[in-house]
This record gives sequence, C-alpha cells and structure tokens, in this order.
Amino acid sequence: MNDSRVQASTQKLLELLEELAAFTAPGLGVTRLLYTEEWGRAQTFLQGKMAGFGLKVTTDKVGNVFGRLMGRSPEQKVILTGSHIDTVVNGGKYDGAYGIAAAMIALQDLQKNFGQPQRTLEVVSFCEEEGSRFPLAYWGSGHVTERYDGSEAENCMDADRISLQAAMAAFSFSQSVTDTDGNISKSTGARNDIDAFVELHIEQGIILETTDTQIGVVQGIVGQRRYMVKVSGVANHAGTTPMLMRQDALASAVEMLYVLEGAAKAAGAPLVATSGKLEVYPNTPNVIPGEVLFALDIRHSEEEELECFCAKILSLYHEIAAERGVTLEVIPVLHTLPAPMDTKLSTALEEICLEQGKTYRMMVSGAGHDAQLFAPRCPTAMIFVPSRAGISHSPEEYSSPEQLAAGLEVLTAMLYELAY
Amino acid sequence: MNDSRVQASTQKLLELLEELAAFTAPGLGVTRLLYTEEWGRAQTFLQGKMAGFGLKVTTDKVGNVFGRLMGRSPEQKVILTGSHIDTVVNGGKYDGAYGIAAAMIALQDLQKNFGQPQRTLEVVSFCEEEGSRFPLAYWGSGHVTERYDGSEAENCMDADRISLQAAMAAFSFSQSVTDTDGNISKSTGARNDIDAFVELHIEQGIILETTDTQIGVVQGIVGQRRYMVKVSGVANHAGTTPMLMRQDALASAVEMLYVLEGAAKAAGAPLVATSGKLEVYPNTPNVIPGEVLFALDIRHSEEEELECFCAKILSLYHEIAAERGVTLEVIPVLHTLPAPMDTKLSTALEEICLEQGKTYRMMVSGAGHDAQLFAPRCPTAMIFVPSRAGISHSPEEYSSPEQLAAGLEVLTAMLYELAY
Repeated sequence: MNDSRVQASTQKLLELLEELAAFTAPGLGVTRLLYTEEWGRAQTFLQGKMAGFGLKVTTDKVGNVFGRLMGRSPEQKVILTGSHIDTVVNGGKYDGAYGIAAAMIALQDLQKNFGQPQRTLEVVSFCEEEGSRFPLAYWGSGHVTERYDGSEAENCMDADRISLQAAMAAFSFSQSVTDTDGNISKSTGARNDIDAFVELHIEQGIILETTDTQIGVVQGIVGQRRYMVKVSGVANHAGTTPMLMRQDALASAVEMLYVLEGAAKAAGAPLVATSGKLEVYPNTPNVIPGEVLFALDIRHSEEEELECFCAKILSLYHEIAAERGVTLEVIPVLHTLPAPMDTKLSTALEEICLEQGKTYRMMVSGAGHDAQLFAPRCPTAMIFVPSRAGISHSPEEYSSPEQLAAGLEVLTAMLYELAY
Repeated sequence: MNDSRVQASTQKLLELLEELAAFTAPGLGVTRLLYTEEWGRAQTFLQGKMAGFGLKVTTDKVGNVFGRLMGRSPEQKVILTGSHIDTVVNGGKYDGAYGIAAAMIALQDLQKNFGQPQRTLEVVSFCEEEGSRFPLAYWGSGHVTERYDGSEAENCMDADRISLQAAMAAFSFSQSVTDTDGNISKSTGARNDIDAFVELHIEQGIILETTDTQIGVVQGIVGQRRYMVKVSGVANHAGTTPMLMRQDALASAVEMLYVLEGAAKAAGAPLVATSGKLEVYPNTPNVIPGEVLFALDIRHSEEEELECFCAKILSLYHEIAAERGVTLEVIPVLHTLPAPMDTKLSTALEEICLEQGKTYRMMVSGAGHDAQLFAPRCPTAMIFVPSRAGISHSPEEYSSPEQLAAGLEVLTAMLYELAY
C-alpha cells in the first residue's frame, strides 16, 4: 500500500480506537466489563460500523459479534481475525480493541483494493477475555472453540453476587443491525468452520520497545502454572526467641522465593517465575510470623520445561520446610498448556516483515490471549506491536500511531495472503 | 524457708494471681488495659490487699500503686520491687501480675518471719507498661523514672480517639484505701528515693524451658532498633516481563531478608533480627510487585554490636537496591539503648540460687521491661522463671506452681539481703 493509503487507514484506525474508548464506565482509563451497558453499546456500535463496511454482521448466543466478507469459494472454511471487546477495570484503549479495530480496517482496505476475496474473511469482536468481571475468562472465544457450552454461567458470580447467567439473560442481543442483505443470524456458539485465526495485539511487555523492534511474530503462548503456597511455622516473641530456635514462616518463605528467583534466572528465558502476592500472619512488627501465604505464577513456552521446573522447585520447597521445621501446603490454582502458533503462518509473517522493511523478532507471548484457544484447533498466528514501557491494564497503556500502523500493515498483508 | 511455709506462700501467690486474672474485659484470656474499669478495680483491689498485708499504701498521679513496709532507717532510700498491672488484649495471667503478686507475698513473708526490715521495702503495681491501649509504653515506670512528665497525655490517642489525658482524668484515683495509720498520699510521679529495683517476671521465651532451668538471672535487657523499610520498584506484567528486565520490589525485599537472617545467625546470640510485618503492593498474583514495606526489629545486649550490625545490614541493603534498580527508604522507628543489670545484684542472685539448690542461667532479656527504665538510675535486677513453650501475650501463657514458687523464693531471699 502506498503512503497516503497507509495514512488514511491509520487515521481511520485511530478514530475507531477513540470511538471505542468512549464506551466506558466512569473513572480512569477504559472500564468495559462483560454484559454491562457500556459493553452492550460498544458491541452495537461495532455491528453498525461493520455493516457500514459492507460486512455481513452476525452475533451468537453469548454476544460475540462477527463481520463477514464473503469469499468467492464460500464452501471453504473461514479466515477469522479479531480480539476481545472487554477490558479490565481502569484499563487502556488498545488491549483487545486494537485487534478488532485493525481487523475491521484491514477487511475494508482489502475489499476496497482487491475486491472480493477467494476465501471468506471474518472479523470478530469476542465478548469477553479478561476475567475481569466474573471468575472465568475467554467467555467469547471459549464458546467458539467449545471450551464452554454455557452451563458454566449459572453458578458463576461476580463480586456483587450477580450470576453470569442473569447478566447475560438480562442483556438483549436483539438490537443487532441488519447487513445490506437484511440478514441477522444467531448461531449456537461453537464453530467448526474456522480455517485459521490471526490476532493482532499490543505486546503488554517491554521486549519490543527495549530492542527497538516494530513487530513481534509470536511463536507460541506460554503455558502457565499457578499455585498458592502456605507455610506454617510458630509465631513467637521477636525479642526473646533465639535465631536458632525459630520456626519463622516468613524467613522460610523468603528462602523459598530467593531460590525461585535464582532458579528462574538460571533456567533462562522464556521462563518467568513470580510471586505477586504474599500475606503474613499475624503481621505484627515484634512477632515472628507463624504463617505465610504466597502465590506462585510460573510460565514457559514448553510444557516439559515448565513441568520440570515446577517439580524441581516444589521439591526444593519441601526440603527447605523440613530443614526449618515448618509445614508446607501447595495448592495448585491454574494449569494451562502452552499454545504453539502455526509455523507456516509465523514464517509467512516473517517474510511479510522482511518484504515491508519492518524490524521484527520471533518471540513468545507471556500473556494469555484468545489465540491460545484456537491454537489446538486450527493454524493460529499472533502479531505484536510495542507497548510503551510495557504498560498494560492501565490508563497509561500506549502505542504510537506509527506502531499501530505497522501492525495493521502486517495484518492486512497476512490476511491478503490467506484469503486472496 | 521450710517446706510448709513455701507451700503456704505458693498457695497465697496462686490465689492472688487468680484473683487478679478475674479483673478483665470479656473475651479470651486477660484483657486489662490502662484506665479501663477493670484496670481500676484491679488497682483498687491491690490497694486493699496491700493494706491488709500491713503495708502503707500510696498512689501517684498516674495511678501507680505502692505498698510500703517501713524500715528502721527510713532516711535511707527505698528498695522497690514489682511490675505492671496492665495486659495486652487477650493476654495471660502472669505477665506483670506475677511480679506484683510475688512482691506482695514476699514482703508479707519477710515481715512475718523477720519483722521490720532495716531498709524500707516497697512493692509497686505500675499502671501501664505494654503500650496496648495508647501508642506509648511504660506510662507507670516512666513517670517514676522521669521519662514522662505527663505532658505527653494530651495528644496521645487510643484507637477510639480517646486521649490519654481524658482517660486519665475521667478516672478517679480518690477511691484509695487508707492504711492502718490512715495515711493516703498522692505524690507527683518522679521519685529520687529509690535505691534499687528488683523485678520478678516470666521469661516470655523458650530458653529456660528448653534448657530445663529453674531461674534466669538477667544480665541485661537488650537494646532495640526498629525500622520500616520501603522498597520501590516497578509493577509489571508477571507473564511478559523477562526475569532480567525486572525491578521486582518483593524479590528485592526477599534478598534483603535472606541476607538479614544469615547475618543474624552468623553474628550469634544474643543478636536477634526479625521481620514480623510485610506488605506487598499491588499484591496481585500475576503482577510483579512494585512496592514492598517491611518492618525490621533488631536486638542485642551491647549497643556497639547493635549499631555495627544495623549499619552493616543497611549498607548491604543499599547495595542490593542499587544492583536491582529499586529505591530504598529506611525509616527509623525505635532506638532504645541496652540496659545492663547491676552486676553486684546479679552476682547476689547467682549465690542465692546456688544456696537454694536451684538451677539457673545468666541470660539476657530479649523483651523490654519496667526494669530497663530503672537501670540507668539505680542498681536493678531481674529474675526470670520459665514460660511454657515461650508463650506470652496469649491466654495460653503459663508457668507451673513449682516454677512460680521458685521465683518467689529467690525474690524473697534477694529482698532479705537488700533490706534486712
């Protein structure tokens, strides 16, 4: 695409992002939680926009919104692209919205420049991904990929004890916009007609910015293991208990976390290990802690490495606990498998970057995305653009127009390759 | 003293402890905070008991209660013995109360067995020591030793925003019991007529029990340094931030606390170092902590060792912070000097133990006591008896009748030596 077209597309992209950012609850940044009023208005807005782009608009039973650009060979499966419309509380404008907006602009540009595609192209605005309202994530892509069937909704409560089922039922999806043919359809959720899924997203990390790279070609989404670890010692007087007569739960947890960091650094990228949450009891300055609870969040792109690392660490923890005379309880909280991206697609993305003269790096996604639910089912690809200072889930989330434009160009070229 | 007398005294001691334990707010254990109704009734009860023991009872302006056994040479200064009447919330029966009750029984026994002493002996029930209601400790002994002059009371608030001044004023000290001569006096607080102070107390630690020793002869009360340490890094995504690109405030604090424990163990007894309190921000499992606040409590019987250790640790902390690219703020919270006990008195206690065939050990008190305020002003001694499992500040606080009796015998012999 020539420069002026790129500029025009970039401008439309930025405008669309600003329009979406306006659909928010009051407060800092963007707050657009599943099945809230602002969420509904955003999805309705998108339906209208997609229809205006000449796409055939459909929704499904959980409120995913699809915009279809019919291909000349409609019997072939669909090339799907998009992201999630929901946000965290006080989030940013780009996380999720960028992937949807860029997909819409890409489809509009492709149609304008190249006419009808060979394969059907479809943009999706997934209803939910973040898990920021209900204790459940990927409610949108999870229905499409048959992770959920809807039965989960009844007993799933938000912080105000409103069930997912009630929130969904109270919300009307009937206010959808007809496409140019006057067709509205409500599908059941699960789809087996997707041939590939491509997601454009902000990096939410600092690697692209730190290495001054325009594009991240994602090779895989990490697997994750999360645990709660409870260390129980003996609370005692901080003044009168000699150092060698203690069963200090915090000193024990400290040794465990010190060992964790060392082991993670020794293992090397892409392994990351974090304790983000730690509670001390009784948490009084002059009382030796009797109990500590801490969270573990460990991620790696290879399941075997992840398994190995966790087993080693937990074994070490049992040794440390035995040595210190404290007890250890490890509660697994989460175990998601790594999701490798399709190598043909990531190779194609590499070639596109080279062709377009863009700097890129092959990299792993340390954060979960809708793409990870598609990866086991069809060829899947993710494209990253830099995040300023790695900030996300914050009003300070930011990527520059140039950075956003670069991602849009790569996505457009990828979709062209897949569908034309 | 012969066996039956010991038994009788022990019995009276246990009864007195039970009677005192009944003066409590509702709830577990004993809760008797400064200037509460139960505190007042306890002090009134003690005045009555002391008068019944033939002691001359006085109170002072902050509600300390004194019971005097006049000596034949009243122009000489007084031998004072006792402890504090207040408790922590849900505390035990022995912390403070034991020292008062034993002193009263000792004075009664000495008078019965040996008549009038040469020197005046006085038992004291200090009004407050724990700092459990107001953010101020040693309100009782602090007035006697001129640490406080009362001006502190106006701006000192409890958790319900009642000032120490209001609590004190609302409380009437006029309901004091006359002694056999009909004398009541209210002194101003500060006293310069004390020649020695001897305090009997439960150990509140596990050394005596662990070493199966009857008596602790205290050589000194540790100095204490307390700090709040604030480590500020950068909160970031736990998945997308590589290990080598982090400014993890918790990982930094962990290294600091790991180093602290190692250094304290290397320094050896009597140094103790504890972090009892730690707070993480934002304290979310999948967010690298941006800020951590932790408390430091470091104690040693020698000021120079304590100073040296703290300086070394804090210097190491600055190095760790610099290496990790986090910032460090160290806020001093407390600095109390060690309080050596009088060597002549502790030698005398040793000899008493040997004479009485009691096992004893010279030891340091890791906890603060009223005795530490007297130590700079007059010869001071402390006697410890074992605490079961080192438990104190708890309803589970316990020392057996035999253990309590042993302490009483040693105290009585010490007072005899000082006053007869």
